[in-house]
Amino acid sequence: MSDEIQDALDKIFAIDSALYKERGFQRRIGFGKRPALLNIDLANAWTRPGNVFFCDNMDVIIPSTQALLKASRAAGIPIVFTTTAYNVTQGDPTDMGLWHKKIPAELLQAGSETCAIDDRIAPLDNEMVIEKKRASGFHGTYLAGFLRAQDVDTVIITGVTMAGCVRHTTEDAIAEGFRPIVVREAVGDRVPAVTEWNLFDIDAKFGDVEPLSRVLDYLATVESGSQRDVA
Amino acid sequence: MSDEIQDALDKIFAIDSALYKERGFQRRIGFGKRPALLNIDLANAWTRPGNVFFCDNMDVIIPSTQALLKASRAAGIPIVFTTTAYNVTQGDPTDMGLWHKKIPAELLQAGSETCAIDDRIAPLDNEMVIEKKRASGFHGTYLAGFLRAQDVDTVIITGVTMAGCVRHTTEDAIAEGFRPIVVREAVGDRVPAVTEWNLFDIDAKFGDVEPLSRVLDYLATVESGSQRDVA
Amino acid sequence: MSDEIQDALDKIFAIDSALYKERGFQRRIGFGKRPALLNIDLANAWTRPGNVFFCDNMDVIIPSTQALLKASRAAGIPIVFTTTAYNVTQGDPTDMGLWHKKIPAELLQAGSETCAIDDRIAPLDNEMVIEKKRASGFHGTYLAGFLRAQDVDTVIITGVTMAGCVRHTTEDAIAEGFRPIVVREAVGDRVPAVTEWNLFDIDAKFGDVEPLSRVLDYLATVESGSQRDVA
Amino acid sequence: MSDEIQDALDKIFAIDSALYKERGFQRRIGFGKRPALLNIDLANAWTRPGNVFFCDNMDVIIPSTQALLKASRAAGIPIVFTTTAYNVTQGDPTDMGLWHKKIPAELLQAGSETCAIDDRIAPLDNEMVIEKKRASGFHGTYLAGFLRAQDVDTVIITGVTMAGCVRHTTEDAIAEGFRPIVVREAVGDRVPAVTEWNLFDIDAKFGDVEPLSRVLDYLATVESGSQRDVA
Repeated sequence: MSDEIQDALDKIFAIDSALYKERGFQRRIGFGKRPALLNIDLANAWTRPGNVFFCDNMDVIIPSTQALLKASRAAGIPIVFTTTAYNVTQGDPTDMGLWHKKIPAELLQAGSETCAIDDRIAPLDNEMVIEKKRASGFHGTYLAGFLRAQDVDTVIITGVTMAGCVRHTTEDAIAEGFRPIVVREAVGDRVPAVTEWNLFDIDAKFGDVEPLSRVLDYLATVESGSQRDVA
Repeated sequence: MSDEIQDALDKIFAIDSALYKERGFQRRIGFGKRPALLNIDLANAWTRPGNVFFCDNMDVIIPSTQALLKASRAAGIPIVFTTTAYNVTQGDPTDMGLWHKKIPAELLQAGSETCAIDDRIAPLDNEMVIEKKRASGFHGTYLAGFLRAQDVDTVIITGVTMAGCVRHTTEDAIAEGFRPIVVREAVGDRVPAVTEWNLFDIDAKFGDVEPLSRVLDYLATVESGSQRDVA
Repeated sequence: MSDEIQDALDKIFAIDSALYKERGFQRRIGFGKRPALLNIDLANAWTRPGNVFFCDNMDVIIPSTQALLKASRAAGIPIVFTTTAYNVTQGDPTDMGLWHKKIPAELLQAGSETCAIDDRIAPLDNEMVIEKKRASGFHGTYLAGFLRAQDVDTVIITGVTMAGCVRHTTEDAIAEGFRPIVVREAVGDRVPAVTEWNLFDIDAKFGDVEPLSRVLDYLATVESGSQRDVA
Repeated sequence: MSDEIQDALDKIFAIDSALYKERGFQRRIGFGKRPALLNIDLANAWTRPGNVFFCDNMDVIIPSTQALLKASRAAGIPIVFTTTAYNVTQGDPTDMGLWHKKIPAELLQAGSETCAIDDRIAPLDNEMVIEKKRASGFHGTYLAGFLRAQDVDTVIITGVTMAGCVRHTTEDAIAEGFRPIVVREAVGDRVPAVTEWNLFDIDAKFGDVEPLSRVLDYLATVESGSQRDVA
């Protein structure tokens, strides 16, 4: 992003933050006791160059997510990956619903390498991979019920895109009763400024945006076996 | 079912129907204009002998469903199949949520032949196969959004089991704003009397239970292309 | 219920239970650590004679619910009441959706005494009263998100009717990741045998049906303040 | 907004639009045949000065919404208003869930004048007023089922705030299978630039942002009685 644009954003956020603070927004939701790690759409369509869905900043997002996976596996918390994929990408009816009328969803064929999770952050056998049809990881999926059955109270969110799937997932997470923590270095998008805009909105109203280091410190304090205290 | 049990059921239903009618229940919801066919869990686990999930009466249910598929394909309406299947059937966390604490869900491994739709009623390429995790075809799936995007107002329901997935799907269907029509010859279960009980409850409160012949007559009147009147 | 009908039911349940047990159904889900009490539709329409929705057995259901309320308040657990009520009961559009096409929903005017919770079990100020539109207490309401935000893992269910709102609520509860416990003496319906049928189905597949005494014993062990361990 | 900030935004949107267009985003979803009007949180807390929730630009938003109400009533389409309000705004448990940990939800007492729809756009008796608990008009409410039962395929969206309730409602609308049309002159927020940002994101991915004049032209073409073609 050019310095000029960054300066403009900084100016806007300063004005807006002052108003939000004065009016009682931008509060801290805080970490809970039983987190899950939720990786949104870190599949090849979004993480590998040459795809229309490809996002910027993968040289930061992938290592950050690797660090979170390592810490989450050490803590023994539930780990979920989502991808967006469709069984019927030509003709009608289609499981794309209406979304291909706005975005190129027809390029996301279920079962293709394009829709598979990036193997630099490959899921282990007992980690969930949820194939979703809409932007939110919660919408039209078993995610909320799964997390509640696991006694989860906090979702640590990574992935892309900030203006699409990460944003909608975060809004749904707090609505469903989970504390959303969005990890600043582990999220991104494909057009300039939009990551910053959406992080600003989220931190004001829907979840806490936190640096990677702070989230890693938190995960180190989570007791292994804190989940599922009832057999 | 023994004659004795059938007599007892007939007696109970006569008493209960009289009370329901007097109090204004058991009304007719009727057929809408844009139906979809919804086949619940007609996968091998439920349709083939030798499985703990196997249901009775498949020699009637399968041909009835075949007749409905033929008529639905002729009418060009959306067709959906569900199956119940899990990616993680051992250990914890699991996408079974809490359900394996009540039923043997751990036998339903995603990707197995057990969970595949019975090939006597094999889905065509543009028909939806939804892998659900809970009893209802609507719960934790994209079904409601798909049907609305297709302009559907009525769901014709087949499959098993009446006390489980068909019942919950029907309750959710009317709650979501769709007219549920349950086809008497195309539904079943695995223990005596339970099909009759659940059809009775459904017809009183949640959807219309109709004979196959009446549903086939209706489908013959559905105009091909009645769906999706907007490009 | 006549002895003859009871005998027929006993015979059916014995046959069906034998099959369910052999096949691995009818397991125990068990109590969790953080319960909530969920009272379904114990409003005057269902609890007071002279209304078409009136249910049998209120001389047992009301005292049982009173006992559960006392124990739940002592334990400091979240308490929720639902009622079913509509703002527009004449004409179209209506918030009845399609349900008045099956049942006399048009008699349930929001704000009326008919739809108010029975004052023998009157809610306290910090207890939730949820006005729902459909059978399930979860469907189209904030219940699931509320319970998760309260860190609840178990729902103790009372109320009416077994074939309608209690059944659908129980099915949704386990789907959403909560352990459903249905209290035998605190639930009912308005037509013979239907309570027994639905309790049988629920215990086989969706939740544990438990006697009042056992649930009261459990509530006595719940630590006050076990909820919300994070500020 | 200062010219300087507007210039920066214009520059960003030009760059981002070029990339989106090249990659196949920013498509048109278009109007359907059976619209509903959905007015988000145009209650006094947001429309009247002196409240922390008060939004800018009400001298444009209110007249625009009045024009849409007039046209919608003439066309006989379903009209819905939402407000955000809580029964328990002090102590715990509360129907605020977790949201008061981010925003001043505790000021929105159900039944107060603050949470009532602004009387300049007062609802008529057969228009729905939905009291929601979360940002989206769909989340934890009967809205989706109501719209489907009314055979609606398109939602025309007005109200506030763009970064909160309007954004989340629009994302949910397309996920649920409805075509979202956001009316540019009828929506707003309370901090500079955030309306423009969120309209940009929505138009790229979730719904069509259209000028008031175009929406009024469309409503004039909607046949009265186009809804509910089945009795």
